Parts: sequence; C-alpha cells; structure tokens
Amino acid sequence: MRKGILARLHGYRYEHTLGCERAAIYLAELYGGDVEKAAFSAILHDITKHLSKEEQLNLSKKYGIIPCNAEFSEPKMLHGKTAAAIAKDEYGAPQDVCDAIACHTTGKAGMTVLDKILYLADYIEDTRDFPGVKNARELAKEDIDRALLYCFDQTLIELVTRAKLIHGDTIAAYNDLIAQGVRWRDAQD
Amino acid sequence: MRKGILARLHGYRYEHTLGCERAAIYLAELYGGDVEKAAFSAILHDITKHLSKEEQLNLSKKYGIIPCNAEFSEPKMLHGKTAAAIAKDEYGAPQDVCDAIACHTTGKAGMTVLDKILYLADYIEDTRDFPGVKNARELAKEDIDRALLYCFDQTLIELVTRAKLIHGDTIAAYNDLIAQGVRWRDAQD
Repeated sequence: MRKGILARLHGYRYEHTLGCERAAIYLAELYGGDVEKAAFSAILHDITKHLSKEEQLNLSKKYGIIPCNAEFSEPKMLHGKTAAAIAKDEYGAPQDVCDAIACHTTGKAGMTVLDKILYLADYIEDTRDFPGVKNARELAKEDIDRALLYCFDQTLIELVTRAKLIHGDTIAAYNDLIAQGVRWRDAQD
Repeated sequence: MRKGILARLHGYRYEHTLGCERAAIYLAELYGGDVEKAAFSAILHDITKHLSKEEQLNLSKKYGIIPCNAEFSEPKMLHGKTAAAIAKDEYGAPQDVCDAIACHTTGKAGMTVLDKILYLADYIEDTRDFPGVKNARELAKEDIDRALLYCFDQTLIELVTRAKLIHGDTIAAYNDLIAQGVRWRDAQD
C-alpha cells in the first residue's frame, strides 16, 4: 500500500513526504507514539495537496466536509481534511490516523500525541529550509509541546506578516498550549 | 451624565478615557461617524476595567454574558462586554454604542464605523506610548481600515510574543479585513 500511495506523489512533494515519514518515525520513537500509525499518516498527509481550489471544494462536498470562512477563501487549507477523507475511503486508515492527517496544517485544540507527531514532522523534516526550522528541530528533540508552540508562534507571525488568513483551529491549538502553561521562551511569563 | 461617568474613573484610566474621547471625536469627524455616539462610547468603554477577575465573572453572570474559554482563563478580557452591559443598564446607551464598547478590546468580524472608531481611538489616543503607536496614528489619518489592520497585526504579534491567549473575535476581525483585501504594508501580496 505504501508503494501505491508514494506513486501518487511527484517531485518535491514525494521527497517531502519521505522526509515527513522519517521525522514521524523518529518522533514516535522519541515520544512513545505508534510508529506504524505515525508513518502511515505521514505518507498520506499531502495526498491531495496538488489539487486545485475547485477540486478541494468538490472533494469537500463529496465527503461532507463543510468549509469554514477561511477555508472557503483559501481552499488549499482544506488539503488536510480532504487527505483524511481519502485516507479513510481509499486506504481504510484508522480514525486516529485520519484525525492526525486532518489537522496537520492547522493544528487544533486537544491534539493527541499522533496529531502532534505528524504536525511537527511536517514542519521539521529534513528537506525543510526556512528561518526557524533549526530551532524547531532542536526543540523537537527536547519537548514535543514546546516545539509545537514554537511552530504555532512562527506560523502565526508569518501569516500576520504576509497578510494571510488565520484558521480558527490554529488559534485554538495555540490557546490550548498557552492555557496549559507551555512556553518555549525563557523570558515568557 | 458625562460628569457622573467620569467621576467613576481614577488616575491613568481617567486620563486615558478623556484621551480616548478626544480621539473618538476626531475620528468620527474624519470618517463621517456619529460624533456624539463616538464620544459616549469612549467615555464608557473602560468603566468596568478596574474590576477583579471574580467581579468580571459575577457581572457576566448577572448580565447573561457567557464567557468563551479565553475569557474564562483571562476574565479581564470581559471588560468590554461588562462595560457594554453597564452602559445599557445604567446609562441607557443605544445598541450601537453598546456594541462598540463590547468589542473595543477584541474587535470582531463585521465591525461598524462606530466599532472601528472606538477600537482605534482606544489604541491611538494621546496618552498611549508604546512601539508602533506613531505608525498607528499616521495610518489613522489616512485610512481607518488600514489603521485597524495595523492595530490587529501589532496586537497579534505582541500576544504571541508574550505567550498570551488570543480571543477568537480578534482573529475574526483580522480575517475579515484580510478577506476584504485591506493591507497596510506595500510589500504584502
């Protein structure tokens, strides 16, 4: 099945998916997650990312996904949810794998260990090269929640700086960690 | 009535409220808002800000305000909503004045001109002194929406940097402006 899924991915997305699989396995081993499920969710997480806005909306309709305002304006945001639907429908992925795939772009409140592993693996995998990725990798070795908050912080600041829409689930994920007292900066109160 | 309201305010809050009134009148004249309502909302906007967390929650209960998760964690966030309830109950303020007061800290999607005037007046009034306030004042002279987006951008970045909870209405306000194509940076796409 892994081979068949990988055959649907091309170019950078193929390389990124393999990197994400390696990172997900590493994180699952480090944080006591289910290694097989982590790898399975990684292989499938971007399976619909190449689709156009119209195709994202059509797939959402087919699978009963109701886009929020932000997703309607930027249907590419739906690729986690549409990939989760494909994972279930075409590959019989278990619910926790589908849930992790569904929230891998936005995060959400109450993320499971598997959700966190996939989100973080997608952010830090080897082929990624952007400001802050090294910090994220260092934090990922030390504490999964601090690493996750670092990712959300960077993402939120980047979205604001680039004048992009912010998904409500990203704020829910951020607030959830803040309310739990997670911090990655020493200077934070 | 104005005198009676001002008598309830002390120290910096008194000075800030008078500054906010001046700024609200200025902005209402500049952007064709209702000058009297702008001034009325400014005088009342922080009338409950001195209250403790417990008092904010008690007042919310009294007036049927149901706190969201973020407001439960930081009840001071409720001071706009509790002030709006006092404005209606004790001073008979009209609904649009109460609405502007209610969202003066968080913003919200679909802000009216009066909502925008109060939010901005609170941010830029003369006694304010923090990084970015000069930029906000300059933008406020040019375009109320660009100025507003600037305020939300600065607020979001500050909240993330200080590891504070972000209210869902602030994201709704930000997304609303972004979706309308409002930008304040030339380099933004």
